[in-house]
Amino acid sequence: MKKLLSVSLAGVLSLGISMSANAVSEEDAIEYRQAVMEVIAWNFGQMGAMVRGKIRFDAQVFAKRAGNVAFLSLLSLEGFIPGSYEGETDAKPAIEINWDHFNAKMAQFEEESAKLAEVAKTAKTRREVGLQFMKMAKTCKGCHRRYKRR
Amino acid sequence: MKKLLSVSLAGVLSLGISMSANAVSEEDAIEYRQAVMEVIAWNFGQMGAMVRGKIRFDAQVFAKRAGNVAFLSLLSLEGFIPGSYEGETDAKPAIEINWDHFNAKMAQFEEESAKLAEVAKTAKTRREVGLQFMKMAKTCKGCHRRYKRR
Repeated sequence: MKKLLSVSLAGVLSLGISMSANAVSEEDAIEYRQAVMEVIAWNFGQMGAMVRGKIRFDAQVFAKRAGNVAFLSLLSLEGFIPGSYEGETDAKPAIEINWDHFNAKMAQFEEESAKLAEVAKTAKTRREVGLQFMKMAKTCKGCHRRYKRR
Repeated sequence: MKKLLSVSLAGVLSLGISMSANAVSEEDAIEYRQAVMEVIAWNFGQMGAMVRGKIRFDAQVFAKRAGNVAFLSLLSLEGFIPGSYEGETDAKPAIEINWDHFNAKMAQFEEESAKLAEVAKTAKTRREVGLQFMKMAKTCKGCHRRYKRR
């Protein structure tokens, strides 16, 4: 029992070190993930305007933006740290409670945005990217509806 | 001469279309570039803490963060649009006045962060990334000193 305790203690200590290696304040984490979402939204918005025909479709620009979102989709998750769902955030505590479900939703976003980046590489018209853009957009909406305050 | 004028007009019109395709408000552009910088700062800060030995060096995490910064270094430029150097921004109007110099500075940042990402791919200790991290950091500082308000 004594050995078990000492092992646990070592485990806790090493965990402590590894956690402090990534230790950031809740405020910093909130600002970080909001910034990631903001950069995604910028690229998303410009793609959406092309898909809807509001601005001219530029295949090269669209592909670049789709690649940006695919890359950025991988970045926000580390900002969703325990205890960061109060204060200056629209992220609901439900994220922490349903962490696995939230993670799965985020994985869907990553997957669909990667697919969009792939489709966009060879697309020449907005019609060719429209369907996959909508699929990607649905993963945003689906997650926001459940886990975002407004 | 008449032909030259009409060609120029066509040029101006097509430029007009291409510009309106990317038309965004100054406020949106400011928020966008600040968000990009924020995401860079998050990754930069964590790398800096590893380089300085404040947190444990994790080669895999460091390489990921270096790759993030290299990617993100390409994104902020489009947020520096004409007329976006007043109001809620620390970016100085000098950017617009010395656009080519600012661009060159940004290119240096892109280059040095790409080099860091490359070095980080095979580095096993913080000593191996330290020099290139400092080189990259210098490109941030050099540009901020001249073009950022505080």
